[in-house]
Amino acid sequence: MYELGVVYRNIERAERTVADALAAYGSATVHEAMGRVGLMQPYMRPIFAGAQVSGTAVTVLLHPGDNWMMHVVAEQIQPGDVVVAAVSAACSDGYFGDLLATSFQARGARALVIDAGVRDVKTLTEMGFPVWSKAISAKGTIKATIGSVNIPVVCAGMIVHPGDVIVADDDGVVCVPRALAAKTLEAAAAREANEGAKRAKLASGVLGLDMYKMREPLEKAGLRYID
Amino acid sequence: MYELGVVYRNIERAERTVADALAAYGSATVHEAMGRVGLMQPYMRPIFAGAQVSGTAVTVLLHPGDNWMMHVVAEQIQPGDVVVAAVSAACSDGYFGDLLATSFQARGARALVIDAGVRDVKTLTEMGFPVWSKAISAKGTIKATIGSVNIPVVCAGMIVHPGDVIVADDDGVVCVPRALAAKTLEAAAAREANEGAKRAKLASGVLGLDMYKMREPLEKAGLRYID
Amino acid sequence: MYELGVVYRNIERAERTVADALAAYGSATVHEAMGRVGLMQPYMRPIFAGAQVSGTAVTVLLHPGDNWMMHVVAEQIQPGDVVVAAVSAACSDGYFGDLLATSFQARGARALVIDAGVRDVKTLTEMGFPVWSKAISAKGTIKATIGSVNIPVVCAGMIVHPGDVIVADDDGVVCVPRALAAKTLEAAAAREANEGAKRAKLASGVLGLDMYKMREPLEKAGLRYID
Amino acid sequence: MYELGVVYRNIERAERTVADALAAYGSATVHEAMGRVGLMQPYMRPIFAGAQVSGTAVTVLLHPGDNWMMHVVAEQIQPGDVVVAAVSAACSDGYFGDLLATSFQARGARALVIDAGVRDVKTLTEMGFPVWSKAISAKGTIKATIGSVNIPVVCAGMIVHPGDVIVADDDGVVCVPRALAAKTLEAAAAREANEGAKRAKLASGVLGLDMYKMREPLEKAGLRYID
Amino acid sequence: MYELGVVYRNIERAERTVADALAAYGSATVHEAMGRVGLMQPYMRPIFAGAQVSGTAVTVLLHPGDNWMMHVVAEQIQPGDVVVAAVSAACSDGYFGDLLATSFQARGARALVIDAGVRDVKTLTEMGFPVWSKAISAKGTIKATIGSVNIPVVCAGMIVHPGDVIVADDDGVVCVPRALAAKTLEAAAAREANEGAKRAKLASGVLGLDMYKMREPLEKAGLRYID
Amino acid sequence: MYELGVVYRNIERAERTVADALAAYGSATVHEAMGRVGLMQPYMRPIFAGAQVSGTAVTVLLHPGDNWMMHVVAEQIQPGDVVVAAVSAACSDGYFGDLLATSFQARGARALVIDAGVRDVKTLTEMGFPVWSKAISAKGTIKATIGSVNIPVVCAGMIVHPGDVIVADDDGVVCVPRALAAKTLEAAAAREANEGAKRAKLASGVLGLDMYKMREPLEKAGLRYID
Repeated sequence: MYELGVVYRNIERAERTVADALAAYGSATVHEAMGRVGLMQPYMRPIFAGAQVSGTAVTVLLHPGDNWMMHVVAEQIQPGDVVVAAVSAACSDGYFGDLLATSFQARGARALVIDAGVRDVKTLTEMGFPVWSKAISAKGTIKATIGSVNIPVVCAGMIVHPGDVIVADDDGVVCVPRALAAKTLEAAAAREANEGAKRAKLASGVLGLDMYKMREPLEKAGLRYID
Repeated sequence: MYELGVVYRNIERAERTVADALAAYGSATVHEAMGRVGLMQPYMRPIFAGAQVSGTAVTVLLHPGDNWMMHVVAEQIQPGDVVVAAVSAACSDGYFGDLLATSFQARGARALVIDAGVRDVKTLTEMGFPVWSKAISAKGTIKATIGSVNIPVVCAGMIVHPGDVIVADDDGVVCVPRALAAKTLEAAAAREANEGAKRAKLASGVLGLDMYKMREPLEKAGLRYID
Repeated sequence: MYELGVVYRNIERAERTVADALAAYGSATVHEAMGRVGLMQPYMRPIFAGAQVSGTAVTVLLHPGDNWMMHVVAEQIQPGDVVVAAVSAACSDGYFGDLLATSFQARGARALVIDAGVRDVKTLTEMGFPVWSKAISAKGTIKATIGSVNIPVVCAGMIVHPGDVIVADDDGVVCVPRALAAKTLEAAAAREANEGAKRAKLASGVLGLDMYKMREPLEKAGLRYID
Repeated sequence: MYELGVVYRNIERAERTVADALAAYGSATVHEAMGRVGLMQPYMRPIFAGAQVSGTAVTVLLHPGDNWMMHVVAEQIQPGDVVVAAVSAACSDGYFGDLLATSFQARGARALVIDAGVRDVKTLTEMGFPVWSKAISAKGTIKATIGSVNIPVVCAGMIVHPGDVIVADDDGVVCVPRALAAKTLEAAAAREANEGAKRAKLASGVLGLDMYKMREPLEKAGLRYID
Repeated sequence: MYELGVVYRNIERAERTVADALAAYGSATVHEAMGRVGLMQPYMRPIFAGAQVSGTAVTVLLHPGDNWMMHVVAEQIQPGDVVVAAVSAACSDGYFGDLLATSFQARGARALVIDAGVRDVKTLTEMGFPVWSKAISAKGTIKATIGSVNIPVVCAGMIVHPGDVIVADDDGVVCVPRALAAKTLEAAAAREANEGAKRAKLASGVLGLDMYKMREPLEKAGLRYID
Repeated sequence: MYELGVVYRNIERAERTVADALAAYGSATVHEAMGRVGLMQPYMRPIFAGAQVSGTAVTVLLHPGDNWMMHVVAEQIQPGDVVVAAVSAACSDGYFGDLLATSFQARGARALVIDAGVRDVKTLTEMGFPVWSKAISAKGTIKATIGSVNIPVVCAGMIVHPGDVIVADDDGVVCVPRALAAKTLEAAAAREANEGAKRAKLASGVLGLDMYKMREPLEKAGLRYID
């Protein structure tokens, strides 16, 4: 349930260096590093391929067909933030276009993550402003009802608190709670440290069956080979 | 993001009399009384028509295809509770059937709200144990991975904290935060107090246009009548 | 594209006796009688089983999350009408509940067909007021934006003009254009006249293959039997 | 890939007594008895609640919008069969209504399982002829293209060979391969034999945690209780 | 409801210069210029990014799995037309491929908008022939049933009359009724005239809150800032 | 129904030259050459545009959220194979990423076709390893339950036997049964032989109506032209 009609101006953001460093690991590694939780629903897709960002969340709760609060959240953006927009009921309208993107970019936002629709995607692509969304739609919105800014929201099935770290790339969007950001960064780094050696082995033809010593547990689980 | 592998045994439940009283108003009125927020996604449907319940939430986080934690949450149920089950990734498997329902009922649970599938619905209907779910599926689950009990979860798009009040009927499922339960009950009662008189007027042929004095604002908004 | 902000008060309705008589044939027969066109998308489902109605369409165009025009259309209802509600963008909110149903019923409406959500379905069922809808949802709506009444609308994929005949039952919703209503009624009656004899034959074990003389065309089409 | 234009007249059906006996266990138990496989997608729903059947599969492959082969398969039905209908591309049209149901029933069919739409559901309900389908739709079909009868088909994601056993109830539809039918019946019976005692224990308040001795493995898996 | 089996050869097209000029404004601006109506469902997506077209609609009604009428509509194409294809029941088959595209292009068509599937998308992309569709599918169609050409159709939820203007780009597809095309062009131009100045202001860091003077109405609506 | 816990090591693959040659014709032509069957559901989409492959199927059956068997199938890959992965219940998790792709590529696999999710799509695109999947998702999987390798599976609605030929491109994925591969190749070649001449004619402005001599059958079917 949401608190309506409030804007929290002072939020505690995850540490900047940590928030920034997580981008390099990508959503899949970060999601694993947290114990396979934190991922938004896979219907959240980027409007163009190749963007890979991380940043601190400022959140906004919108109502169906109404983007008034997008202007309110713009003022709360600080450089390095990612705006996370939730809607109080499912809606695919285009809440965000090139004018708002210009404003967000001027304020230092790195991306928008919105559980609804976006438009002007050609211009946004030219601007290099990445958006992860549920839909692309030219359908415009009105400005009639107030929501909230910087309250905890549910975006594409995931709780996001203001100040959490958002990591997004072609594989999806992960939310890392502020309190776990440093630990997650360590775990992600540790995870990735191993990957180079593994990749080389696999590329040389070594099987995962042997590299991960899976043959015995598979046999114990009852796997039978038939010639 | 979810804390994994923990069971909170002591949760603060909404006041019993308040939690119990909300059932009578139904999900639509309670949702309006909160300012039109708090409703789970409308894909949550009852397995049989006519049930109308309210109760205090005990929450459980499950993993896809794994219902192990359903047995863990059973122990935390107190009479008057409603179990709210979330899954860490979308899954329609049948996590819950007649045996678990027998156990839940014996512990005093009033209902299950699960963002996944349920089975044995014929027997559950005969038992009078209501379930609101995303799917009905005979697909069984394994018991291999631990989740958590009584942490805040996202169920069908809505944040539910343990101890919140759940109100569910044929129209859907609403979550009332514990801190707002008493105030919401008042607002719901006030709302309903007006409805009898309104209904009588409308039944006599008076139009909402006149009863709600909408003609002038509609004209101001530009509505034109054409003969 | 829709004309906004207008209410047409004088519409030409299909002839009453024809509009009334079509109910008895049901949506499947009427749809066949028109040459297999006119059916709304099959996601349109009745809120309770067994209702079978026909009536003349009064139409209303709504906006997402806004049911203001439902009060405007109420005034235009005449006994024997079916209200057909379209929305300018996809929305599953509950636009209609027991108060509006009381008003519609008082005006003589036979049913509501809405390409969106409905609520208070338990009460509507008790009132015997049938609704065919895309969703059931407790989510309420606001009253802020004007649409139109008695313009042609697209409801669940089908064009409906005011005054057309709507036929709805457990199989779905069909729209019969006013100009074709009489001809369709005749065709439906002719279709059904044959069915009794066919049913008796099939019940006695005669195969459709023989009754419809399909064996030869099937063979010509290349069908082979393998023992 | 499908062999087109053929009707296999001689199929080997699962043993009648086995096929008949599986109904009593229901889809959930039978699916578990097979090792949690064999279930069709959960979008397959019964047109009325409460039916619980089993029978031997006769299969039919249809084309989108064309029900010609339904008449061909009718001739191949023997008492105790369940017709399983697949379509070569997704389609929600109403392939089956009261006339075909009369014919199927006259031939001894127990049910229809169709990965498409059905109509005349009110009459089918009155006739007591159960159908599990993907959709309900008044949309009719043509008779122009030949498919096949009694070839292996994929219905709602599951391979069905002619002669396999179909078990269907409110929880869904399971296909039991002919060769495994007897073994599955035994396993289902064994499974159910245990359930009465378990149910009594759970009803008396014993927890699954204790009855299934889960406390130790849960602790080993890392579950922590917090007061 | 549709008139079947007819081809209207003489349709009144929107004025060529107006129809051509609308492309430059794009679907979002044109949709706003019409009062936020006219947009097809957002599931209509381009087969390649970057195309932005407008043109006069020639319409075709198809049946599921049958593309016969695509050849009939080809003859009615004039340079500057956009073909709008509707289907009498939902279908995702690939009705259109490189051969038809070659023919359409030779006749002067600018694009196809189809509420169904398309195939040969790699070749179509190389040819630079844009298609907006509901699906991409290699599934072919038959040529057995007649539909109609240049009747009003419903495509992806929107009524399209022959001769209307279609505007399509990466954000979606809008239909502008012929009678409103000139007025809509003016409104779109007026809308865009303002955007350059607004964009510059926002890029310089001015907030929409100030530029649009939203602070006072937001406060009146009850928005509170919390430090 | 699936046989669980088995790995068939010796499968009979379609002839290499035939399997290799089919790629050039693409999924649409191959699907037509087989009589318009064999296509997987159109929700199967490539992770990058432009790949066009064919190869012999090695199959793997997975369980929801569990990719253990992906390592088992890796060992069974021979150069020229395409891995076809089915899941025993619907799941969108990311079963496959860059490490497994490295291993598959080292073994000679040409592509993965998976009725579930995939991740690391940016890296897979850089590696040029094509995947056709139902979803893209960073959600990881566990390694706890055994499935099977090289049994017949249902992938996206289509039966695939080990050794069948898979043809995949931007239009979708087709499965050609091993026994029909040579015949299908011939039919595809014959089909394509005609296309060049047809394309030239259509490009010159000749209508399909005339080229295919459709005017007479259309008239017979009742098509009327109205001026």
